[in-house]
Amino acid sequence: MKKVAIGVDIGGTNTAIGVVDAEGHVMVKDNISTPSHGDINKYISDMSSAIRQLIDSVKLLNPDIEILGIGIGAPNGNYYNGTVEYAPNLSFKGVIPFVSLLKKEFPELAAIALTNDANAAAIGEMIYGGAKGMKNFVMYTLGTGVGSGVVVNGDLVYGHDGFAGECGHTTLIPGGRLCGCGALGHLEAYCSAPGMKRTAFELLAKYNANDSLLADKSFQELDSRMIFEAAEKGDKIALEVFEMTGHWLGQGLADTVHHLSPEAIFLFGGPTAAGDYIFKPTKESMEKHLLPIFKNKIKILPSHLKAGDAAIVGASALVYKELEK
Amino acid sequence: MKKVAIGVDIGGTNTAIGVVDAEGHVMVKDNISTPSHGDINKYISDMSSAIRQLIDSVKLLNPDIEILGIGIGAPNGNYYNGTVEYAPNLSFKGVIPFVSLLKKEFPELAAIALTNDANAAAIGEMIYGGAKGMKNFVMYTLGTGVGSGVVVNGDLVYGHDGFAGECGHTTLIPGGRLCGCGALGHLEAYCSAPGMKRTAFELLAKYNANDSLLADKSFQELDSRMIFEAAEKGDKIALEVFEMTGHWLGQGLADTVHHLSPEAIFLFGGPTAAGDYIFKPTKESMEKHLLPIFKNKIKILPSHLKAGDAAIVGASALVYKELEK
Repeated sequence: MKKVAIGVDIGGTNTAIGVVDAEGHVMVKDNISTPSHGDINKYISDMSSAIRQLIDSVKLLNPDIEILGIGIGAPNGNYYNGTVEYAPNLSFKGVIPFVSLLKKEFPELAAIALTNDANAAAIGEMIYGGAKGMKNFVMYTLGTGVGSGVVVNGDLVYGHDGFAGECGHTTLIPGGRLCGCGALGHLEAYCSAPGMKRTAFELLAKYNANDSLLADKSFQELDSRMIFEAAEKGDKIALEVFEMTGHWLGQGLADTVHHLSPEAIFLFGGPTAAGDYIFKPTKESMEKHLLPIFKNKIKILPSHLKAGDAAIVGASALVYKELEK
Repeated sequence: MKKVAIGVDIGGTNTAIGVVDAEGHVMVKDNISTPSHGDINKYISDMSSAIRQLIDSVKLLNPDIEILGIGIGAPNGNYYNGTVEYAPNLSFKGVIPFVSLLKKEFPELAAIALTNDANAAAIGEMIYGGAKGMKNFVMYTLGTGVGSGVVVNGDLVYGHDGFAGECGHTTLIPGGRLCGCGALGHLEAYCSAPGMKRTAFELLAKYNANDSLLADKSFQELDSRMIFEAAEKGDKIALEVFEMTGHWLGQGLADTVHHLSPEAIFLFGGPTAAGDYIFKPTKESMEKHLLPIFKNKIKILPSHLKAGDAAIVGASALVYKELEK
């Protein structure tokens, strides 16, 4: 009997669904639109149909399959309540009881659970990835925003209300850049992919760098991949973007270490594809900001989750944690 | 059979020892010098004698007593190893195996455990104080420095190495004030009792405030109690010290909430005696820095531990957590 788990990643425009085996490989996957109209019942019905079709397609090749459950990653996902609450980028308003709606569709499944996408990624790292066997670690996901998932004593930290792990919204520079959440100076405004673009534009302005490889891109065009490519060609602005991003991220990671003293901090997402360009200055800065008792102890590691499938895989891993209980 | 626990608080010059009942009341207590000469064997022997004398004195009044164990709070105390490691303000160099040394003296006791003083205070709050029944909370101790203890799912967070909970050394203002640890801009440099004094001196200088009630004190003389007394008399400098301290502390507490989403954050120590002068601006600033999902949810509460006995009481509470295991 081959055991599999369903992973569902709810994004603002797209919902990715996959069947994941016990090693964290996506066997089959599909996408449906996340509706812009806010009709939750139709959405749950579409999602359930897509899940059933995926299960059927897997059963064609593996008739002897056992479905363990469904894990969902969603913005503002609340693990305790199984709800999505006031998610700014979804059309469903207020508090949506996703887990109970899905349980009506799949009463036969023992485990249906939901959390936010970064928490799901942290659980994915623990179940399938580089954090296997680690009891204390933190995951930072660097993308459009910066998410995080905190693991203490082998369990994801949800806090008193189900929402813990929003390290992207710690204050890095008081009164600094405007964050997407409306506050000033948050880590996300500096260390996300758009944060790197903002840094590039600040540096272009600072050095009047008409000769930079980034100087022919508009603010709308520039992305973190272009900055990486320019860095590889030795572009000074691009190289300094990575230095500064690492400097800021290292400061934030040190704050996390001073709270939690994790064995490792995993970094996931587009900007981490730049490898040493981002990891080296991040490590140097974190070490510089740490108390002596923490120096040279805490690893900064790239996530082992595959970029394209990570959200589905992470969400599916929730099922295993749920069955442990 | 009345159950009691021994609490030991190791400070730089003084070691306080007490017998604590199940309600967190200190029945008897004593002090010995923390040696400046670094002779650990003599110190352990002195400490053990003092503990035995205290036990004997309690037994005179309560012959039917059961000693559950010994809990120790110490700077740089490592819970996992039962050691004090490279404590800058103690004369014992390197790694000192306090717990195993004490176990040789008290082989009959089931539980002997050690952690740092702020972690001990957090456990004290959980066992005897205002955090009874809370599963997720954080304790900030504001004194000469700023310590902290983090509780997640009912357990103190020690991290991978036994040293978690150093929130006083998160960076509040990059490149800011020199912290006692040698780094710049740490929370401790702003929100400790000496941090308040530094703020007062900055404000005296900023406003050239010769008429302030604080203007006749030298840097060595001024302390946080004087600032409180001046605030009560309406002194503008003193009032602004509390406003700014609260502003900074609230920013730091918001970072803690974004990591951990605790039910409450407890504040302990000298500066908290000022009540609303410190709690009100701290609360306002924390709320201002929080993501919408956390607003108006997280309590900031004064510690219920009695100031004079808190270190002993907190340390003794370690015994109860140890016996739970």
